[in-house]
Amino acid sequence: MTVTRRVTFSAGHRLHNPKFDEQKNREIFGACANASGHGHNYRLEVQVTGPVNAETGMVVNLKEIKQIIEEEVISKVDHKNLNTDVDFMRNVIPTTENLAVKIFEILDSRIGKGLLSRVVLWESENNRAEVCR
Amino acid sequence: MTVTRRVTFSAGHRLHNPKFDEQKNREIFGACANASGHGHNYRLEVQVTGPVNAETGMVVNLKEIKQIIEEEVISKVDHKNLNTDVDFMRNVIPTTENLAVKIFEILDSRIGKGLLSRVVLWESENNRAEVCR
Amino acid sequence: MTVTRRVTFSAGHRLHNPKFDEQKNREIFGACANASGHGHNYRLEVQVTGPVNAETGMVVNLKEIKQIIEEEVISKVDHKNLNTDVDFMRNVIPTTENLAVKIFEILDSRIGKGLLSRVVLWESENNRAEVCR
Amino acid sequence: MTVTRRVTFSAGHRLHNPKFDEQKNREIFGACANASGHGHNYRLEVQVTGPVNAETGMVVNLKEIKQIIEEEVISKVDHKNLNTDVDFMRNVIPTTENLAVKIFEILDSRIGKGLLSRVVLWESENNRAEVCR
Amino acid sequence: MTVTRRVTFSAGHRLHNPKFDEQKNREIFGACANASGHGHNYRLEVQVTGPVNAETGMVVNLKEIKQIIEEEVISKVDHKNLNTDVDFMRNVIPTTENLAVKIFEILDSRIGKGLLSRVVLWESENNRAEVCR
Amino acid sequence: MTVTRRVTFSAGHRLHNPKFDEQKNREIFGACANASGHGHNYRLEVQVTGPVNAETGMVVNLKEIKQIIEEEVISKVDHKNLNTDVDFMRNVIPTTENLAVKIFEILDSRIGKGLLSRVVLWESENNRAEVCR
Repeated sequence: MTVTRRVTFSAGHRLHNPKFDEQKNREIFGACANASGHGHNYRLEVQVTGPVNAETGMVVNLKEIKQIIEEEVISKVDHKNLNTDVDFMRNVIPTTENLAVKIFEILDSRIGKGLLSRVVLWESENNRAEVCR
Repeated sequence: MTVTRRVTFSAGHRLHNPKFDEQKNREIFGACANASGHGHNYRLEVQVTGPVNAETGMVVNLKEIKQIIEEEVISKVDHKNLNTDVDFMRNVIPTTENLAVKIFEILDSRIGKGLLSRVVLWESENNRAEVCR
Repeated sequence: MTVTRRVTFSAGHRLHNPKFDEQKNREIFGACANASGHGHNYRLEVQVTGPVNAETGMVVNLKEIKQIIEEEVISKVDHKNLNTDVDFMRNVIPTTENLAVKIFEILDSRIGKGLLSRVVLWESENNRAEVCR
Repeated sequence: MTVTRRVTFSAGHRLHNPKFDEQKNREIFGACANASGHGHNYRLEVQVTGPVNAETGMVVNLKEIKQIIEEEVISKVDHKNLNTDVDFMRNVIPTTENLAVKIFEILDSRIGKGLLSRVVLWESENNRAEVCR
Repeated sequence: MTVTRRVTFSAGHRLHNPKFDEQKNREIFGACANASGHGHNYRLEVQVTGPVNAETGMVVNLKEIKQIIEEEVISKVDHKNLNTDVDFMRNVIPTTENLAVKIFEILDSRIGKGLLSRVVLWESENNRAEVCR
Repeated sequence: MTVTRRVTFSAGHRLHNPKFDEQKNREIFGACANASGHGHNYRLEVQVTGPVNAETGMVVNLKEIKQIIEEEVISKVDHKNLNTDVDFMRNVIPTTENLAVKIFEILDSRIGKGLLSRVVLWESENNRAEVCR
């Protein structure tokens, strides 16, 4: 049994690898390499997998998952710049893939017990990245 | 190959375990424990997995799946109260998880041949539960 | 210039006019007349119309509108039963139309200055009601 | 008869009025005032109103409208920072309202004949601004 | 007070004016002029405007509107070819605009009393046409 | 790590097996067997699975995947008739299942390295088919 909580946040970013010169950055990241950055409304789905507790009829209390997501992710990335404002993204190129990996690691260590099964992160209605255990 | 049919229904419910006192029910289920109940527009996805029949180009005729979902699920839960009106939910706390499990069991025994691979049930655009074989 | 804030809530209801007998209620309200009720995820859009303030670039601060909607509507209807739990719906048949009218009146008197221009209320993805000034 | 074309773009921005001190900016714009900015996936709807041409069955060729939106708006704002990269937003606080007004003016002068009837601009699935003639 | 009913249907069409030569058809209608046709999932919204009936709490019974839409529109266009199979589209170029106008006329004469206020017809998530009284 | 690209296209089709007589075609395919065809707005999701490249922060450049989908799929099916206009669908009943299988095969041979992990194809908001490795 898997339960999923969806949340949204808005953040700015710029895709750029300091090891590459301007032309290579442009080649790889296209308009995402623009120097002054841009941003997205991200949609995040957090999935938890386990047996249903017979007394509560729940795998896990989604209110607690919502609270953990709020504390560990939303409060740190919402209305922030992913290149400069977010501790856990320091020295990481803020692609959807890398952001999804970091969110998985953070939530996994906080939720514990191997319950976290998947994180799906939409950058737009057309692009998304997902990490699973 | 997996094919999926999506349907929607509206139902009322209240989350409440008679073994718990009022305070514990409130603690666990929050506003979902309100005595007079509330409700949701549920979205249900039913997935069937198997080989494609060469003559029809289909795994299974989705019209038949639609008909089975209508008879076994929609006619029993749509515009009903899950705590009081639905036979297969008697003595079950009507969480999204429990409702998804029951729907999986009912559809699986009716569709047969192990074709049913997954049931996904949205309680809102932010919360969902899924059961897979 | 019109700005719109969208929110969602979940509530239970039953459509039933005590002046009608059972048969007439069933005729008019169909499955919505079921005695133990059902419910919906409602989507509410609140529109405010006025000139843009040159200093803020806003018609009105949507954070304030959000706060007003939270206090005056969401806190009173979310996870509640519209027939029994909501003061402003006493003795009103809880159709989408009537609920939209009441929400318009409440928000209009609280927001003031004739700024509220429209309230749109979805009962499902297929049905909605709207009231405008 | 009104026809509508929907497009999307992603941009960064920061809400900040240089006439206000830091505290007042924070008070009015909240997290949107964060110094390093954030961003959104914007959704833009452009409406054109007029009679249907009997020979084409169209009010206006939406391919041409799409082309105009691409040239005049998308190429200038997509993957850009609205505070620093966009000529028509110089010295304008990049609220959804102000951006919608500017887009209306630009498209109106390019489409001509008073055909443009409305511009609707979503900053997120919960907030939008619209300008009509 | 305005109430809206949303329905969907799927149909095939080809945009082509027999008065134009092949090149002009291609110029105006682009890929929509392809000889063997293509198709869409259409979304139709039907709006009815009037006072709320005090006894029912409704402007009009949406079940009746749904029934009328089913009989007058869906049964005639769903899974049909708009160029060849639909009586009310004979000798009409099946643009979204023309189809919306015809649907408005048909529903208006059937619903009567000037209650129908607007028909909105989506050809895709990016394009739509609307007719209002 | 899995990344997904979503695209849409519109196409016409008719479900019909020449080996079956008219009655059997009607029995199996229902209204989809109508002789002059109909059509849909399809939504296609293409998933690629692999490790994240440390230098780019990407599994694969989605711009390249988008380009491949455009060349191999969209340019061949968009605004076309699946029964008559599409080489890779010759002698194939154009069900969602068969179209998804063909798209998987084409993209898999072009993307290479076993990176393509899944193709999901929606025929409408209620029906979809998916193929995975």
